[in-house]
Amino acid sequence: MAEKITKREDDYSQWYLDIIKVADLAEHSDVRGCMVIKPYGYAIWEKMKDQLDKMFKETGHQNAYFPLFVPKSLFEAEEKNAEGFAKECAVVTHYRLKNNPDEAGKLMVDPEAKLEEELVVRPTSEAIIWSTYKKWIQSYRDLPILINQWANVVRWEMRTRLFLRTAEFLWQEGHTAHASKQEAIEETEQMINVYADFVEQFMAVPVVKGLKSESERFAGAEETYCIEAMMQDGKALQAGTSHFLGQNFAKAFDVKFADSDGKQDFVWATSWGVSTRLMGALIMSHSDDFGLVLPPKLAPIHVAIVPIYKGEEQLKEIQDKLQPIMAELRQKGLTVKFDDDDKRRPGWKFAEYEAKGVPVRLAIGPRDLENGQIEVARRDTREKQTIDIDGVVDHVSKLMDEIQDNLFNSAIDFRSNNMTKVDSYEEFKEKVEKDSGFYLVHWDGTAETEEAIKKETKATIRCIPLDAPAEEGKCIYSGKPSSRRVIMAKAY
Amino acid sequence: MAEKITKREDDYSQWYLDIIKVADLAEHSDVRGCMVIKPYGYAIWEKMKDQLDKMFKETGHQNAYFPLFVPKSLFEAEEKNAEGFAKECAVVTHYRLKNNPDEAGKLMVDPEAKLEEELVVRPTSEAIIWSTYKKWIQSYRDLPILINQWANVVRWEMRTRLFLRTAEFLWQEGHTAHASKQEAIEETEQMINVYADFVEQFMAVPVVKGLKSESERFAGAEETYCIEAMMQDGKALQAGTSHFLGQNFAKAFDVKFADSDGKQDFVWATSWGVSTRLMGALIMSHSDDFGLVLPPKLAPIHVAIVPIYKGEEQLKEIQDKLQPIMAELRQKGLTVKFDDDDKRRPGWKFAEYEAKGVPVRLAIGPRDLENGQIEVARRDTREKQTIDIDGVVDHVSKLMDEIQDNLFNSAIDFRSNNMTKVDSYEEFKEKVEKDSGFYLVHWDGTAETEEAIKKETKATIRCIPLDAPAEEGKCIYSGKPSSRRVIMAKAY
Repeated sequence: MAEKITKREDDYSQWYLDIIKVADLAEHSDVRGCMVIKPYGYAIWEKMKDQLDKMFKETGHQNAYFPLFVPKSLFEAEEKNAEGFAKECAVVTHYRLKNNPDEAGKLMVDPEAKLEEELVVRPTSEAIIWSTYKKWIQSYRDLPILINQWANVVRWEMRTRLFLRTAEFLWQEGHTAHASKQEAIEETEQMINVYADFVEQFMAVPVVKGLKSESERFAGAEETYCIEAMMQDGKALQAGTSHFLGQNFAKAFDVKFADSDGKQDFVWATSWGVSTRLMGALIMSHSDDFGLVLPPKLAPIHVAIVPIYKGEEQLKEIQDKLQPIMAELRQKGLTVKFDDDDKRRPGWKFAEYEAKGVPVRLAIGPRDLENGQIEVARRDTREKQTIDIDGVVDHVSKLMDEIQDNLFNSAIDFRSNNMTKVDSYEEFKEKVEKDSGFYLVHWDGTAETEEAIKKETKATIRCIPLDAPAEEGKCIYSGKPSSRRVIMAKAY
Repeated sequence: MAEKITKREDDYSQWYLDIIKVADLAEHSDVRGCMVIKPYGYAIWEKMKDQLDKMFKETGHQNAYFPLFVPKSLFEAEEKNAEGFAKECAVVTHYRLKNNPDEAGKLMVDPEAKLEEELVVRPTSEAIIWSTYKKWIQSYRDLPILINQWANVVRWEMRTRLFLRTAEFLWQEGHTAHASKQEAIEETEQMINVYADFVEQFMAVPVVKGLKSESERFAGAEETYCIEAMMQDGKALQAGTSHFLGQNFAKAFDVKFADSDGKQDFVWATSWGVSTRLMGALIMSHSDDFGLVLPPKLAPIHVAIVPIYKGEEQLKEIQDKLQPIMAELRQKGLTVKFDDDDKRRPGWKFAEYEAKGVPVRLAIGPRDLENGQIEVARRDTREKQTIDIDGVVDHVSKLMDEIQDNLFNSAIDFRSNNMTKVDSYEEFKEKVEKDSGFYLVHWDGTAETEEAIKKETKATIRCIPLDAPAEEGKCIYSGKPSSRRVIMAKAY
């Protein structure tokens, strides 16, 4: 960990990439726009996955798996959805390579192995899933269907950025089918709440729950619920979305059910997803100029212990003393790493665990041992403290809660300081140009106004907050009446 | 569950598909050769995954994620590997669709969005991973790299069969890098042992560990270790492979390391994988003419309870009695389903849980309640027994071990009865034509003999068993000398 980290205030974008590098989370691959998620990054993603999966199952969902490919004719069935994704589809056209007769040892696409119908690599799975649900649904007894899928998807992005925007990414996509509109809306709302709970309680990132404006909606949805988080540069990051799809996909794929009176109706649908993008949100919310900062609930390693010793005997003494302590910490569900790698010096290790965001680092040498003491360094505040070794299990275990809470509260404070009500367009333009942040403004509800503001300021409507109080006002742009404020911000 | 199951003796292939259908495990999708894994099937796969993942981590491996796509130039770098997979590659050639000017509402591949270099959808990831490892490895300090990936892969198969052979399948692939040949071989052997332990102890399927003959080796490997299981029709199923790749991929991608003296050498490699094919092995090993049979260690539901009642009051009495029992069963780590769905009759439910292979089914009615009794049906032997309700927790909990053991022992017995030493080619031809099974025969070690036998009998060398005793003999085909027996069988 001798690599340098650019300071946030000098170059926030470079700082983000530096953090990913020093914490060894991911890197660009030899495939344009696709990333390699490295073991430490993947371990964090696994923690996210496991917790989300648990929450999905607790709310009655089951996992399943649907094909990677979508035949073009199915893909185009729901027109808005198809239109929304057509421009970023990777397309499989052939199913075989052959030896290139003109170049020994090289391969070429076999022109005789052209597919009759092209296959789209799924950018999202509504089409393939609803063409399947058609076979599963006849009557109200077959409903609801509450399915989630963990999968990779591909959206051909021209400008990529590790975790935030990559051509291939990992995600989960829930796809549910319901007998009534009301039930589908309740599901959509339930899932945005599950996402908000996860992001706030596990990632320690506060979010605003809201609705997207029509132009920002998911292609094919009637309503898109979202959670929006504020990054340390004041920009917004959409952390998850839950879509009420109405009967759009049921109509496109002719999926009807008979209700208890035998009356036929189209099925109601939802879909909802979060992705490896959350890794970007996690990194940008808490990390500092010294490296990654992780909330304990998602840290692959909770406690790193660095023994400071000369020779086998001293190491053995330290080990003997710490063995029962490590056992107790592990008993409490904490992952403990005792780092006695003697190819590295203690100072190198301190920097390494700091860069990797390990919540607590302990250090102990022969003199500490003599005095019955141990050094405790917490990553969030970077405070160091020497405490009695007898109390270390309790102390560390309490620190985990404290760090988790502190990260969340700091993020809340930061957001409060960067969320501003603005009532004049001139003031808005000036502010948003100078400082990113969330701006609570009145908007007349039209796509034209939205577009005009976006064009002039690059800020977009992030959401119409669900908990926004009714408040009469005038649109900052058009002056037309508005009944509640929306959040405008520049966004990732 | 009113669907009929073809009997094994009437049509084994159809029986297999019927089991998948009645147990609701998977189905064909609208994409040629790709399957939909349904929630119950996926729940079993998740159990497999979780256990394997634990075993990989216990042996020091970490998970990571590499791109779905492999640029053609990387794919062709290791020639044998490329040659082995070229004929079954799905190839992405374009990255955009556009509106079809000739047909309103239809899309077409945008000819202007042709990729400069085609992308192969990974059939296996050695190429993309070794092109990445090149950046990670400079010295022996960077070794070993012990990485596993859970992913989907695509191999364009012309004749597909649910779980056993599909164009897209789910798997894990381990890819490790080592500083010495010895260490890489030890890793290869360790992983075939991990697979064997998993398949025997969790799937309750006995396996033979062995080496593949040269012609059956993984394309690009120096040596392929495999585990072979016998299905109920006597055919062999390759359940997992672990490859010693030598320095082939390191040479193809120029991956060298400096040893402690600064001397440069190519890195040694292994790769190893198991896939959703294991689902096929699981189904075909234990199931019967009444449906799926699952070993308790992989069953999504361990105990299904069917209350037999008229009216709310009777149901309530049963529930009150069973509440503490269910709590105790769950305490013991068992998944319990209390099925009070009143849209279905008890007889329907019995058949349903039988079809789904739930290891133990309990039934209780008002008279049982009066007598303090409960009916226990075990799935493997289909025995029913009425026991005192007070002892049910212990009884059921012991049954889980008994069923797990019984399935494994029955499979061992079946295999013993269908494993035959044969010393004459005439006898072999006759036997293998009539009865599938494992045949232990002497082979002269040449590819010509192997090919000739395969052509005449459809049987192939499944493996050279690792524990085969040295035994002088003569090749059944050529009469040339041989020093140990190999297993020949027809295979999936």
